[in-house]
Amino acid sequence: MASFALGWCEADGTPVTGGGGKGVRQALAVLGAEAVGAAGDEGVVAAVAVELVHTFSLTHDDVMDGDERRRHRESAWRAYGTGPAVLAGDALFALAVETLARHGGGHTGAAVARLAGSLRELVRGQADDLLFEERPWTGAAAVRPAEYEAMAAGKTGSLLACALTLGPVLADAPPPVVEALGEAGRQLGAAFQAVDDLLGIWGDPGTTGKPVHGDLVRGKKTFPVLAALAADGPAARELAALLSPGIPLDAVSARRAAGLVEAAGGRNAALAEARSRVAAARECLYGVPLAPRTVDELVALTGFLVDRRL
Amino acid sequence: MASFALGWCEADGTPVTGGGGKGVRQALAVLGAEAVGAAGDEGVVAAVAVELVHTFSLTHDDVMDGDERRRHRESAWRAYGTGPAVLAGDALFALAVETLARHGGGHTGAAVARLAGSLRELVRGQADDLLFEERPWTGAAAVRPAEYEAMAAGKTGSLLACALTLGPVLADAPPPVVEALGEAGRQLGAAFQAVDDLLGIWGDPGTTGKPVHGDLVRGKKTFPVLAALAADGPAARELAALLSPGIPLDAVSARRAAGLVEAAGGRNAALAEARSRVAAARECLYGVPLAPRTVDELVALTGFLVDRRL
Repeated sequence: MASFALGWCEADGTPVTGGGGKGVRQALAVLGAEAVGAAGDEGVVAAVAVELVHTFSLTHDDVMDGDERRRHRESAWRAYGTGPAVLAGDALFALAVETLARHGGGHTGAAVARLAGSLRELVRGQADDLLFEERPWTGAAAVRPAEYEAMAAGKTGSLLACALTLGPVLADAPPPVVEALGEAGRQLGAAFQAVDDLLGIWGDPGTTGKPVHGDLVRGKKTFPVLAALAADGPAARELAALLSPGIPLDAVSARRAAGLVEAAGGRNAALAEARSRVAAARECLYGVPLAPRTVDELVALTGFLVDRRL
Repeated sequence: MASFALGWCEADGTPVTGGGGKGVRQALAVLGAEAVGAAGDEGVVAAVAVELVHTFSLTHDDVMDGDERRRHRESAWRAYGTGPAVLAGDALFALAVETLARHGGGHTGAAVARLAGSLRELVRGQADDLLFEERPWTGAAAVRPAEYEAMAAGKTGSLLACALTLGPVLADAPPPVVEALGEAGRQLGAAFQAVDDLLGIWGDPGTTGKPVHGDLVRGKKTFPVLAALAADGPAARELAALLSPGIPLDAVSARRAAGLVEAAGGRNAALAEARSRVAAARECLYGVPLAPRTVDELVALTGFLVDRRL
């Protein structure tokens, strides 16, 4: 089940190649370590730990969200059942912690505390994301921008910040450098989430592996829709009227809502948000002494995060 | 949800007192640390970490097993839903790791690796326990005694061994002492599981909080039934005939099966197993230099483990 979740085999154990994720978190972990001149194995152990935590969280998220597809295949709970998928996620998390803890060295405790703290934030963000689905789009109980931001920071930013800083913590890099890399990771997380939100509405199902307009149908509170509702003008008002009854959207209404979000400027606002967050992440990287060549690679990676599949 | 899972409040948040578990693992953690002369806070942090892991595993186990009752109340997934209960378990696990990792000191990494390794064994044991439910009672595919033993060692022994050794690892106790305490924990785990198996068939639902004959109805592979089937004689053969079709037992058949397990000697065999494992655990404790007064307390605790609610 763990191999399946990592994209290494089919549900029946047949090996596959190329079915994994984008590898963003591993790349950040290795580059974060390289940026402070850490030993190669410190970047690798950080990458392994972060990827195991990421795979664990996807496995459990799909259980919670009821998502039936992941990376163009069945999700783990669809393939094996809910109980086994929960258990596989638990095993992946245990292995992440154990891998990092067994690395040894004087800063292992600090690194493990950071990984576990990131997971605590990730869980809180995921919990908020679930709760937000039950909240209305408009009125006094609507999800406020600051709430969305805190949710995204937990759900996405915490693990990216962890990825960039785990190697440096193991290598005892100076605290201001660790802090700058962590802030870069949080900014990238906000950018990443804004792009994910765009893909959740306008992404090509053939590329994302997820149903079209899926986030709109389920009432997920995403950046483009919140930005569109906050705008003034006829499209924003029509969108509010469409969403405010709080009844599930059918395919036709969802397509209509997506058009209104775009007309009200929500799509552009999310793209602008992603670009501005990436710029802020780059500022963080340029503000502290890091290996210049590695910074170049990190900057190239941040560009990919915004431009992927759009 | 975490407070509810720990027995501190009702599902709506109303505080309750006295609703927690038996506290066996915390007691073992504090006594394990005391036995090697560790600092008080090393025993306490070990106890907190182990109890959080235990509560996490109960929360997820109830999801996997579909158990609707836990400690005389609804289980967490019944009270809050499956997704939130999975998430609450994840948060409890993250908090366990973080608590231990933040303790600091030079042996934190080793302690965290031990906790995570125990959890990996626990997950494997729980996975086997689930898979065994699908296996037949008789024939070539039946669960063998060695398989049962490995499952119980993972599901129950690993965390008891971890509880007894976490404080000593933090305090850098000599490896032979840590090893003896670990082996004592594994023996106690086998005893504990044998007693749990007895309670799962003959326990008073008013005390255990679980349905009568519940393990028989669901086809759970437990020590008394495996021992009864391995025995010779008419009761064993009648039991095999009753169980081998592999169809779920109704209440009447389950009561009949329980009687046959007892008549074939399965109940006494499980009790003898528990007592012999407790004796082996005591031998481990007497074989290495430990604080004598703490050993007395540990021995008293091992007696409780066998005699509880029988």
